[in-house]
Amino acid sequence: VSSAIDETHDPALQSWVDAANHDGCEFPIQNLPFGRFREAADMDWRIGVAIGDQVLDLRRAGLIDSHDMNRLMRLLPAARRDLRAAISAGLSRGGAKEASWRSALVPMSRAEMGLPCMIGDYTDFYIGIHHATAVGKLFRPDNPLLPNYKWVPIGYHGRASTINVSGRDFRRPLGQLKSADAAVPEVAPSRRLDFELELGVFIGRPNPQGQPITIENAEDHVFGLALFNDWSARDIQAWEYQPLGPFLSKNFASTVSPWIVTMEALAPFRRAYGRPSGDPAPLPYLDSPANRAQGAIDVDLEVLLQTARMREAGTAPVAITRSNFADAAYWTIAQLVAHHTINGCSLMNGDLLGTGTLSGADPATAGSLLELTSGGKSPIKVGRDEQRTFLEDGDTIALRGRCRREGFREIGFGECRATVLPAASVSA
Amino acid sequence: VSSAIDETHDPALQSWVDAANHDGCEFPIQNLPFGRFREAADMDWRIGVAIGDQVLDLRRAGLIDSHDMNRLMRLLPAARRDLRAAISAGLSRGGAKEASWRSALVPMSRAEMGLPCMIGDYTDFYIGIHHATAVGKLFRPDNPLLPNYKWVPIGYHGRASTINVSGRDFRRPLGQLKSADAAVPEVAPSRRLDFELELGVFIGRPNPQGQPITIENAEDHVFGLALFNDWSARDIQAWEYQPLGPFLSKNFASTVSPWIVTMEALAPFRRAYGRPSGDPAPLPYLDSPANRAQGAIDVDLEVLLQTARMREAGTAPVAITRSNFADAAYWTIAQLVAHHTINGCSLMNGDLLGTGTLSGADPATAGSLLELTSGGKSPIKVGRDEQRTFLEDGDTIALRGRCRREGFREIGFGECRATVLPAASVSA
Repeated sequence: VSSAIDETHDPALQSWVDAANHDGCEFPIQNLPFGRFREAADMDWRIGVAIGDQVLDLRRAGLIDSHDMNRLMRLLPAARRDLRAAISAGLSRGGAKEASWRSALVPMSRAEMGLPCMIGDYTDFYIGIHHATAVGKLFRPDNPLLPNYKWVPIGYHGRASTINVSGRDFRRPLGQLKSADAAVPEVAPSRRLDFELELGVFIGRPNPQGQPITIENAEDHVFGLALFNDWSARDIQAWEYQPLGPFLSKNFASTVSPWIVTMEALAPFRRAYGRPSGDPAPLPYLDSPANRAQGAIDVDLEVLLQTARMREAGTAPVAITRSNFADAAYWTIAQLVAHHTINGCSLMNGDLLGTGTLSGADPATAGSLLELTSGGKSPIKVGRDEQRTFLEDGDTIALRGRCRREGFREIGFGECRATVLPAASVSA
Repeated sequence: VSSAIDETHDPALQSWVDAANHDGCEFPIQNLPFGRFREAADMDWRIGVAIGDQVLDLRRAGLIDSHDMNRLMRLLPAARRDLRAAISAGLSRGGAKEASWRSALVPMSRAEMGLPCMIGDYTDFYIGIHHATAVGKLFRPDNPLLPNYKWVPIGYHGRASTINVSGRDFRRPLGQLKSADAAVPEVAPSRRLDFELELGVFIGRPNPQGQPITIENAEDHVFGLALFNDWSARDIQAWEYQPLGPFLSKNFASTVSPWIVTMEALAPFRRAYGRPSGDPAPLPYLDSPANRAQGAIDVDLEVLLQTARMREAGTAPVAITRSNFADAAYWTIAQLVAHHTINGCSLMNGDLLGTGTLSGADPATAGSLLELTSGGKSPIKVGRDEQRTFLEDGDTIALRGRCRREGFREIGFGECRATVLPAASVSA
């Protein structure tokens, strides 16, 4: 299974790509995430694996014969592990491939990264229980969590066409806004633009329509994880979302990091999955011994903000919140896959599942400004002399993720970053 | 513009394909809808136009040089009109193409129809005001329509991977159900399975992310319409949908008819768009003189049911409800496109927009069983001796649509049909 620890996770492994061996490098030989890159805008996307400060071109290295990432993601679990083992062996210091693979390396500084694959359908879940509780409190102080929350992994469909790779900036959305005291709505740029700290789950192997995936088989269908920012316009959302859920408040842009960290790479960072005492047990289709033993994944998450003024002054981005996937999530990835397909829904190769906002239990570790500022009422301090309730034009948000465990090499997710550009004119 | 009437709409036009000239034929030479077909399961999909009881293979007729329907749908409006004019001229009785195009015809009885194109993202709207009112009444008798309804064309994202072409049956979904008096939910086949009578709007030309489409240009981006059934499990929906909207209650299956009736074919059936006096005027981005003059489209709709018992007895399907698109819809297609993109959201080639359930004002003309049976309380009579509150295994639902106007030839949409199969076993 993908959660098995093998020789590719050996912390003593070193690569002949020197930068991969440096302390703090996010892409040591134990990681080996997959992405799509090109060296010029008129070239096709190629499949690469991050190693240190380099990208290994898998086709030039003779490991695959096509540039089709979605096809690679469909590999059976055993073939995925074989490919990982071959890449690991070839990049290992003292291995036989150093001479031949040198020419298959492209420096990251010369590689433009694309979306990691063609994304089919995109579903966003809501598994951050501290987030659901905090947001629920803003609307229903006495009854923040709805009765279905601990039974149903709540999710809804999102829009795939506006998911961008890290580094692509986007315009502040226009939309209908209506303040509580206004008689009628107006059309204006959102004044409550927010980020959402999430992880994205990429589906590798599809299931046929009408055939649910059991929780036991769920992770065979998952290729890996990336960082995901589900930008949200809270004022558009408040006016539009009843009765069918968020729509234009979300679909103007989302940002995903370019590297998919595979389930195999995450094997050392699995954790037991449990629930607070007193909570109901998951229904049988959402429960299994393996899920209880190691359904959770331990990923430290961080959100960095750099304002336009900080950028002009040459001030580095500052962390505004930190949380952890396993602590924040009420459901596991295997549970999401089993739930999504219990009705016969087909998950397709390249589909993306967002986790929903991964807020920590402490309000200062929330994964959105909505929570960090108590619904926009209490600004947070940013850097030396600025503050924010919601995002301003020119603000850059970057998500980061790291996995750490005693006795294993630390791995990272890279960066999920974008900058808010001014809105289009209302008459556009 | 696509709503202009020209020589292709001349009711006197006849085709050398005899069946196209018969009274009541849905595909006379004035229609010319586009679809994808093949003659055997191991052949590629080809692009065809329906004419009488035949399909004209556009590539064999020398009209196009690829089998890519999505590419055809991207044509600029002027090129779309030119293609329609060429097909119309070639199929006209007395035209020069009869001899050469005979061999480009395939009998419909030998053509397997596929999804009309590769569908990217799917959005479902909620523009049937009588439906929204009736469903709202079930939950909020005193206040059925929410305050945003007459300002915001309410919509949400759906799932594209489970949209099937007419004729593909599907299993009754399993899911979490919780009755009001139960302490905990159970997992079981839905007991409140319903249809939804909708039209689907296919997007032809995309817009770049960040660039809204104005209402004046909106219809240039629309290729045409098809019938659409958004199957719904009301019991799954009731338990799951708070706070983010419908999810597994909808995404197990949707059904679309195989022929896209183009905006050009619909030109004679345009109608003025207005609102009841006292309702607010649409905001400026949702309003234009052309939209007021002819934003609506007059399509008669019908839902047919054939139960398993009727099928065994050789009894024909019976109509259980009838409505009309223009009467049912509170918003126009141009308004949906302008609204969907006001925030910079990109619509892509092949995207599908559902209208939402198109119920008539009279409760007997509602577009779902939820409404026809007052929330499952009052069964409807079906045929001679059966009744239904919700759908049973073996029930076949077929949607039909026709456009009629004095002085013009009647055109039809074909059929959008599927049968409910028994659920998978719970342990599946």
